Amino acid sequence: MGRGRGQGSLGLFLGWPRARASFTRDPPSWPGASSREGLAGASTAHPEFWGRGLGGAGPRPRAGQGGSMLNRVRSAVAHLVSSGGAPPPRPKSPDLPNAASAPPAAAPEAPRSPPAKAGSGSATPAKAVETRASFSRPTFLQLSPGGLRRADDHAGRAVQSPPDTGRRLPWSTGYAEVINAGKSRHNEDQACCEVVYVEGRRSVTGAPRELSPGQGLCFYYWGLFDGHAGGGAAEMASRLLHRHIREQLKDLKEVTHESLVVGAIENAFQLMDEQMARERRGHQVEGGCCALVVVYLLGKVYVANAGDSRAIIVRNGEIIPMSREFTPETERQRLQLLGFLKPELLGSEFTHLEFPRRVLPKELGQRMLYRDQNMTGWAYKKIELEDLRFPLVCGEGKKARVMATIGVTRGLGDHNLKVCSSTLPIKPFLSCFPEVRVYDLTQYEHCPDDVLVLGTDGLWDVTTDYEVAATVDRVLSAYEPNDHSRYTALAQALVLGARGTPRDRGWRLPNNKLGSGDDISVFVIPLGGPGSYS
Amino acid sequence: MGRGRGQGSLGLFLGWPRARASFTRDPPSWPGASSREGLAGASTAHPEFWGRGLGGAGPRPRAGQGGSMLNRVRSAVAHLVSSGGAPPPRPKSPDLPNAASAPPAAAPEAPRSPPAKAGSGSATPAKAVETRASFSRPTFLQLSPGGLRRADDHAGRAVQSPPDTGRRLPWSTGYAEVINAGKSRHNEDQACCEVVYVEGRRSVTGAPRELSPGQGLCFYYWGLFDGHAGGGAAEMASRLLHRHIREQLKDLKEVTHESLVVGAIENAFQLMDEQMARERRGHQVEGGCCALVVVYLLGKVYVANAGDSRAIIVRNGEIIPMSREFTPETERQRLQLLGFLKPELLGSEFTHLEFPRRVLPKELGQRMLYRDQNMTGWAYKKIELEDLRFPLVCGEGKKARVMATIGVTRGLGDHNLKVCSSTLPIKPFLSCFPEVRVYDLTQYEHCPDDVLVLGTDGLWDVTTDYEVAATVDRVLSAYEPNDHSRYTALAQALVLGARGTPRDRGWRLPNNKLGSGDDISVFVIPLGGPGSYS
Repeated sequence: MGRGRGQGSLGLFLGWPRARASFTRDPPSWPGASSREGLAGASTAHPEFWGRGLGGAGPRPRAGQGGSMLNRVRSAVAHLVSSGGAPPPRPKSPDLPNAASAPPAAAPEAPRSPPAKAGSGSATPAKAVETRASFSRPTFLQLSPGGLRRADDHAGRAVQSPPDTGRRLPWSTGYAEVINAGKSRHNEDQACCEVVYVEGRRSVTGAPRELSPGQGLCFYYWGLFDGHAGGGAAEMASRLLHRHIREQLKDLKEVTHESLVVGAIENAFQLMDEQMARERRGHQVEGGCCALVVVYLLGKVYVANAGDSRAIIVRNGEIIPMSREFTPETERQRLQLLGFLKPELLGSEFTHLEFPRRVLPKELGQRMLYRDQNMTGWAYKKIELEDLRFPLVCGEGKKARVMATIGVTRGLGDHNLKVCSSTLPIKPFLSCFPEVRVYDLTQYEHCPDDVLVLGTDGLWDVTTDYEVAATVDRVLSAYEPNDHSRYTALAQALVLGARGTPRDRGWRLPNNKLGSGDDISVFVIPLGGPGSYS
Repeated sequence: MGRGRGQGSLGLFLGWPRARASFTRDPPSWPGASSREGLAGASTAHPEFWGRGLGGAGPRPRAGQGGSMLNRVRSAVAHLVSSGGAPPPRPKSPDLPNAASAPPAAAPEAPRSPPAKAGSGSATPAKAVETRASFSRPTFLQLSPGGLRRADDHAGRAVQSPPDTGRRLPWSTGYAEVINAGKSRHNEDQACCEVVYVEGRRSVTGAPRELSPGQGLCFYYWGLFDGHAGGGAAEMASRLLHRHIREQLKDLKEVTHESLVVGAIENAFQLMDEQMARERRGHQVEGGCCALVVVYLLGKVYVANAGDSRAIIVRNGEIIPMSREFTPETERQRLQLLGFLKPELLGSEFTHLEFPRRVLPKELGQRMLYRDQNMTGWAYKKIELEDLRFPLVCGEGKKARVMATIGVTRGLGDHNLKVCSSTLPIKPFLSCFPEVRVYDLTQYEHCPDDVLVLGTDGLWDVTTDYEVAATVDRVLSAYEPNDHSRYTALAQALVLGARGTPRDRGWRLPNNKLGSGDDISVFVIPLGGPGSYS
């Protein structure tokens, strides 16, 4: 929801004085961070956790949810081991998110060190600034400098996926991405896939509270971040949002109620957004990003969406929507209400009323269709002087805009976004809060063909849910159920199907319509696949 | 949505200067009105309309929607004629809604005149005040003074329906109601069922605009009004809301787009609410009411709901929800956002934050779960002084309240409602705007067992959608499909099933749970029944 508030009211609004104080006053340093932002995305799940905590001599979680989670985590750890990756040692100090100490991003001009050497030195704030402003792709793609250049090539638009030979992503998740057709210099999408260890200071399902400190639990995490007006916000979010979620979960006394996990995710989004506001000057966090995030914890899948990315579950051929898009069209009434209640946010340039087209001065006194914050239908009003202002929300479909500027109404960042040729800020109309939907994985016996598909709008602009479901069926049926590569093949097929092939001076789909010229990123998460199916 | 605005901004907000001016400056008198508020509810559909308009020599509407509408209206007119009722002459002057000229309400102390004589004199404002403050039931019940007393008896709680022998309601609609078990002195539910003629000054589907003035169209209308804190608002709405809708439709250039009809209904709700505000002193419009309204126009059913009544379609055994309830729980985030953006509306007594329970002074500085306008989950915050205020929204289920006072967040009236022992007004948090859902009747071949069921919360508090669907099946299958009385029998069965029988010092259901002690009112509208099925 819209925030429209001054900094002065932050205390009451947030109600998180302790957590925020520790953020701002004493940002913990995070040496050797890049070695823990693992290539296989699972490096923060530490075996010691299993030895001393859930898997060891201590009390175990209940058979139901906890056991299911346990199986999944065990399976992932087994995969890690089987593919040759040894988890790094667990950090001794809590690693609170901090942009200054984030791992250096890969850059074509100054190619990043190979994984084994990446953690050798801690990045200084100055270095972080330098590297964050340059081009990087998710570390799990394991791109060589040459590969990175190919991924950055707008002409070839080669589809990128993690290599077959390296560590697999948790749950054998499939991933594919492709750069835009020239819309922006670099690919402004970012992605993250991690197993995140939460240091324990709470009780878990069925476990007594007296458990020794140091035990905890972990969650699986997938994130897609679709940047706009620069890649900085998406990159920062892809590196830090899951750490904010971890901190919020750590803060809870218990995580057995899904509404507490939902609240933790909601707060994490807000804290991430505030961190961007604080650090935007020093670290060039330019632009903003949509964030679509999946957390798997104790048998439940939490899908949090702020923006116009989309998540659907395809289960036994059936489509289950797991998110909705937040755009000037879908959030029109929220935006108009804010403009109506806080007219100062509109300056003298905008009206909160919507008209089917721009009202002309000569139409003063005539009757024209309009709608306000309370209406879904249209009615007539007599045009007055104020109605000649530009509508707060205008346009349709992909062309819909808030204040004639931005086409998405939720996300992270955008703190500096102003109306074109004006000092009017747009951020008050944008919300950083996600809508979180919960899917109980234990309520249904999933088969290896059941998947959760996440995609940025590059996918969904040219692909319907039904087309995705058809591609799921077509691709997965061509592979053995226990073939780990089938989900990557599916992600690639989805990206290729949305990109199309170069023909008739454009990227075109088989039906000759234009493919997506946007960045396209897709995660395919198997819900009963070889990585997660027991 | 919440309004929270001063009178000064009405002009911009409404954008209806012309229509409003004619309301306030020159309220047309309405002589003989009660004879047109017909017993059979169909008296405003005039045959002259068919002769000169759609059914006559003039251009006809397109075969699709217009033809469907035509068949339905013809069918209704045929019913009127077959049951012996001759439509009254069409009024020559436009009859804008006006509370002062509304027909006198029936009162036990001063029983209303029989229908034939009711229109003999126009009610003076003073008389309207006197009668509106007393008890009345819908005219289509045709209650005698004795019947009215029985309907008002809390001990017997006799179920009331229109008599078998009189005119049928349009479409052979079924209706039943019962008074509460002592919750309030009178039955505060009201109902209305009308065929409303809209004088033409617009083009209709496919018809050229040059059609002669005087032609028009008509819509079918059903309304349930669940009053609280007095019966005045519900009674006023039941007499006038459909007239506001007619005026709004009259104002439209065309009604072919459903979004224009939706806008007309939304505006009608707002104008009805404003009329209540204006006339509340002179006419004792005490309390407020939920409004659930159905409009059938040109092949489409518009269901508009503001409050906690409910509408469902039962079609071939399948349940299609046609409304949602607006309560402190379902509208929590809207209410909290308003309190956050306009803290002056909370006085120094309330906080917009929600806590699971009242915070105690000794808990200052401790951590407690909370949620704000942006959150659906719960998170922890440190309790501050302001958090000791009473939450704007508190309680669960039927006990949820706004400002510890009211359990429903949309509806008409309540302009004088204040927080208990305080001068803080509650109206700014209440919205008069309905959510309108549209159902296209032409998209499906309906059978006589397909019905739209409307009920006040007295029904739904103790009856699930599935139980209603089972009762629909059970009752309708016991009657011949062309038996007009089957829908009344169904409405009665639903009311009886929610009321229960007196046993063990209470009204109890067969499963021995308590029945509803509230007023209960039910419309059963056949979608393919003998009245509407061609």
